Amino acid sequence: MERTIGHIAEFEKTFSPEDVALFSSISNDNNPIHLDAEYAEKSIFGRRVVHGLLVSSLFSKIFGTIYPGSGSIYLTQNVKFLKPAFVGENLKAVITLIEFDEIKNRGNFITEVFNMSDQKLITGEAIILFPNVEI
Amino acid sequence: MERTIGHIAEFEKTFSPEDVALFSSISNDNNPIHLDAEYAEKSIFGRRVVHGLLVSSLFSKIFGTIYPGSGSIYLTQNVKFLKPAFVGENLKAVITLIEFDEIKNRGNFITEVFNMSDQKLITGEAIILFPNVEI
Repeated sequence: MERTIGHIAEFEKTFSPEDVALFSSISNDNNPIHLDAEYAEKSIFGRRVVHGLLVSSLFSKIFGTIYPGSGSIYLTQNVKFLKPAFVGENLKAVITLIEFDEIKNRGNFITEVFNMSDQKLITGEAIILFPNVEI
Repeated sequence: MERTIGHIAEFEKTFSPEDVALFSSISNDNNPIHLDAEYAEKSIFGRRVVHGLLVSSLFSKIFGTIYPGSGSIYLTQNVKFLKPAFVGENLKAVITLIEFDEIKNRGNFITEVFNMSDQKLITGEAIILFPNVEI
C-alpha cells in the first residue's frame, strides 16, 4: 500500500434533504436548522445545514473503504467547522497523509471538506491505524 | 440558561443494525466491520461496530437539542476512539461544560461516551457557540 507522505484520497457527495432527515432520525439530532427550511431561512445560515458530523463521516468513508481501506482502525478525528455545508450542495472530502509511523503502523492525516466554490468548510486531523495485512 | 462550570447533559441510545445500515448508505461508508456480522466476528472486534462518527453524533444531538439547545453553533469537535461501540449495545453520551467565555459566548466541553459496563468508549472536547437569545 502507498504510504508516501502527501498521498491524497478524495470522495464527493451531495447530501439530499432525505439523507439529512434520515441522519436526524438515527442520531436523534432533530435540530430544526437541519430539517426545517423556513426556520433555516430565518437563521444566520439562510439555508438548511447538513449536520457537521454527517459531513465528517465522509472522512470515515474514505479511511474505511478507499485509503487505507478495509481493516483500518479509526483512532482519532478532530474537526473544526469553518463554514456550514448546505443540503443539496456538492461537497468534496480530501484526506492527505502527512506522517507515517512505521513502528506503530499509524498514519496522520489532514482531513478537509470543500464546497464547489473551493471554500474550505471543515478542517481537521485524523490518526488511523493501518491494516496489518496488505490488501 | 445554566452556564455553571461542571454542568452536565446526557443522552442514551442503542444503535440497531438498521440504524447502522442506514448510516452506511447515507455516508457511503460501507466498511464490512459495520455491516457484515460474519466479517466482524473474524475481526479483532468480534462483533459489528457502530461507525465512530455516528456514535459521536450523539454529542451533536445533545448540543443542538438539549444543552445549550436550538441556536447553538458547533465550532469544533475532537474525538478519540478508545474502544469500539457495538451494534445493539446501550450507549450513554455525556457532555460537561468545563469553561465558558462570556465575551465570545462560547463553551468548552468534555465529550464522552460510555457503555453499560461504564467503560469509556470515546473521549474528546468540543467548543460550542451558545445561542444569542435565551431560549
